Amino acid sequence: MRIIVVGAAGDIGQAACNELGQRHEIITVGRTTGDFQVDIGDLNAVKSLYEAVGAFDAVVSCAGDAAFTPLADMDQETFMVGLRQKVMGQVNLVLAGLGVISDAGSFTLTSGVLDRDPIRMGTNAATANGALAGFVTGAAIEMPRGLRINVVSPGMLEVSAPRYGAWFRGHKPVSSHDVGLAYSKCVEGARTGQVVIVE
Amino acid sequence: MRIIVVGAAGDIGQAACNELGQRHEIITVGRTTGDFQVDIGDLNAVKSLYEAVGAFDAVVSCAGDAAFTPLADMDQETFMVGLRQKVMGQVNLVLAGLGVISDAGSFTLTSGVLDRDPIRMGTNAATANGALAGFVTGAAIEMPRGLRINVVSPGMLEVSAPRYGAWFRGHKPVSSHDVGLAYSKCVEGARTGQVVIVE
Ligand SMILES: NC(=O)c1ccc[n+]([C@@H]2O[C@H](COP(=O)([O-])OP(=O)(O)OC[C@H]3O[C@@H](n4cnc5c(N)ncnc54)[C@H](OP(=O)(O)O)[C@@H]3O)[C@@H](O)[C@H]2O)c1
Ligand SMILES: NC(=O)c1ccc[n+]([C@@H]2O[C@H](COP(=O)([O-])OP(=O)(O)OC[C@H]3O[C@@H](n4cnc5c(N)ncnc54)[C@H](OP(=O)(O)O)[C@@H]3O)[C@@H](O)[C@H]2O)c1
Repeated sequence: MRIIVVGAAGDIGQAACNELGQRHEIITVGRTTGDFQVDIGDLNAVKSLYEAVGAFDAVVSCAGDAAFTPLADMDQETFMVGLRQKVMGQVNLVLAGLGVISDAGSFTLTSGVLDRDPIRMGTNAATANGALAGFVTGAAIEMPRGLRINVVSPGMLEVSAPRYGAWFRGHKPVSSHDVGLAYSKCVEGARTGQVVIVE
Repeated sequence: MRIIVVGAAGDIGQAACNELGQRHEIITVGRTTGDFQVDIGDLNAVKSLYEAVGAFDAVVSCAGDAAFTPLADMDQETFMVGLRQKVMGQVNLVLAGLGVISDAGSFTLTSGVLDRDPIRMGTNAATANGALAGFVTGAAIEMPRGLRINVVSPGMLEVSAPRYGAWFRGHKPVSSHDVGLAYSKCVEGARTGQVVIVE
């Protein structure tokens, strides 16, 4: 398969690439890194990305900012970051891809643990994660041409603990290897409309 | 209690008012109807609403548009309707209310069935519903002063069947009475961080 991995340079993106790259051609994408650059927050930019890439069989999204801010300090602009980037950005990859991805292709998005195991300052991310679960549930039944869609919801990665560990006290970190397997299950398996938890 | 019901004139709002109005003072709010008018999509407008209302003990939100559009016809603007209105609008009621609601007060939001029981054209609403579930999970643990937050997730109401029934074939409509009870449970009970399903 020819697989586009958005956010390939990130902690999660590397986990997905290491697993899927063993058997497939990977096209890496980032905001500033990778074979191609895009801002997924802009649907037209995503359409141009797909035109530039040419034919592809799967999209794996491991990108999407959310604001880590105490609820009491949150204003509308801050809260919209997660909705515009982590939700709308990943949804844009699907909306723009529906017409151009190969028959029986798949979209695999990334959410995270915070809507089932919340932390302080995690409300914006929890909201985005829940939104993505709702999105794949709704979108799966409207997919044309045998297309599939799922979302991977990992706990905090071991490799990310130096960055995020202080916010996630008591959370058991997950290995990049196990995270990679979840993307493999979604891309190379047959499921659709599911949240694949990695814990 | 003094309870603000946003969207009080709607099908769900009336169900909430009929139950809670038996024991509490209700301040009705709508975009164009009610004792006060507001656009919940604008945080500053919500702040002004609360100033105008004065002291209150609970907010019940039964408002929030989402776009009912086939996934294949959805563009970024259409998809943002649900994120800006149904998600951000209801979140604004919480962000603006955190500092001014009475101690031990509560916020009760409204989502719906579509993130667990999807229909065609329902993806934008399913996304918003999932977002609201994630939001209350995240926000509940950051609430100051004993404040609580929940979301009611009703199936299609019997009274709404003339409007929506053709989209919801096979869905069992729920009674306005049962929907009212769910808001009572959230406002008059002690739960927090929960999705209260009415089916
Ligand atoms: N790390 C964890 O433990 C963990 C666990 C669960 C969920 N998550 C979620 O998974 C996602 C990725 O996390 P991560 O830790 O792997 O992130 P990361 O290491 O910061 O990497 C993010 C990657 O996404 C790309 N990116 C970000 N915004 C983009 C945009 N608007 N358009 C295109 N590309 C964009 C970045 O591009 P550049 O390379 O150009 O910077 C980078 O490659 C986030 O939503 C995060 O909340 C992370
Ligand atoms: N009806 C159902 O069967 C059902 C089932 C599950 C979930 N839901 C969800 O519950 C919510 C309410 O549904 P409904 O059927 O009761 O709606 P509705 O009958 O159309 O009434 C909506 C109410 O919300 C107010 N409103 C809408 N947007 C607003 C805004 N931006 N600012 C302030 N007020 C606003 C309206 O004001 P005006 O009075 O001025 O128009 C109206 O009072 C929706 O999110 C819907 O998706 C509905």
